[in-house]
Amino acid sequence: MSHHGLLLVLSGPSGVGKGTLVSLLTETDKNVVVSVSATTRAPRAGEIHGKSYYFLSQEEFARMEGAGEFLEFSHHFGNGYGTPKQTVLNAMAEGKTVLLEIDVNGALAVKQAMPESVLIMIAPPDFKALKDRLTKRNTESAEVIANRISRAAFELSKTELYDYVVVNDNLTEALENIQAIILAEKSKTARSGETIKKIMEE
Amino acid sequence: MSHHGLLLVLSGPSGVGKGTLVSLLTETDKNVVVSVSATTRAPRAGEIHGKSYYFLSQEEFARMEGAGEFLEFSHHFGNGYGTPKQTVLNAMAEGKTVLLEIDVNGALAVKQAMPESVLIMIAPPDFKALKDRLTKRNTESAEVIANRISRAAFELSKTELYDYVVVNDNLTEALENIQAIILAEKSKTARSGETIKKIMEE
Repeated sequence: MSHHGLLLVLSGPSGVGKGTLVSLLTETDKNVVVSVSATTRAPRAGEIHGKSYYFLSQEEFARMEGAGEFLEFSHHFGNGYGTPKQTVLNAMAEGKTVLLEIDVNGALAVKQAMPESVLIMIAPPDFKALKDRLTKRNTESAEVIANRISRAAFELSKTELYDYVVVNDNLTEALENIQAIILAEKSKTARSGETIKKIMEE
Repeated sequence: MSHHGLLLVLSGPSGVGKGTLVSLLTETDKNVVVSVSATTRAPRAGEIHGKSYYFLSQEEFARMEGAGEFLEFSHHFGNGYGTPKQTVLNAMAEGKTVLLEIDVNGALAVKQAMPESVLIMIAPPDFKALKDRLTKRNTESAEVIANRISRAAFELSKTELYDYVVVNDNLTEALENIQAIILAEKSKTARSGETIKKIMEE
């Protein structure tokens, strides 16, 4: 209906099920696409340039960073990670719903750059359940787990800065909740200039 | 999830299918209730006090109007019509989604009194289709029809002042669209203080 797509930013602590929700959203709605990030880190086995990531040289990343070509970016352990602005804008111009799965700092940077973006925090029913889930994974060291838990508490403490909070207690219900947000956001009058113009046509 | 209900205001021109949508919304979701208006006009055959309307004396209506006990009110042909504030607030305190089916002037008055209210304009796919529908009814005089059409144009011209616009091209889709808006609005962080508090509990 609208000629402009939607930019949906999903955040949430590790272990909350973001990845599964993102997969289900793209599978159930062909109009939903996931934004591919850029990174300077080396590709891992099986990763495909332009699909898993855009693998960039340090020089190219620095150039794009300096030229303001990222919607948001960060550096971890010497590697750059960023969301290329132009690919997001191109997909939105095609009317796509673009999903970004990024952390709180990235999400707030996107909101500042594009106030029309929609920020959704995926949250556990309660923090205790999340702690249990992270602890039971058992594949990581106690230190890594402790880091994840304190990071999770930080992310969730920023929930009020988001537009929506979706509790992932039940995967189907959480998926329906996000789909409802997409449909509702598309019906906002602020995004429906073309629709309103068409209604008034005689 | 939230301990506070939602106030949903539906407007739209005559013939757009508002009444059918209101019925379907209450039938498919037991949590949705329609606000009963107050009026000074005489009950018609079959109308029940407290269900069709609250039938009030001119004196009682004037008293409530003066005391600010209406969320919105208007006078037509010597009769008063108003939405009693307290019954809406009571239903919301019970967590209900309260529907008001009122005109543009009433809706904008409600938004001013309660900025958290959600205004939805139900619109035809295009104005021509609505004109055809109103004209074909054939049960009313040309003058009544002409009045309806000019009133419809006025109502639709205010769409941008609403939060959402739902095009009623297909009844099922329009119903799903409103249901999505209800679910999305309930997930807004601004309404989810209790949910967020619960998430952070350890």
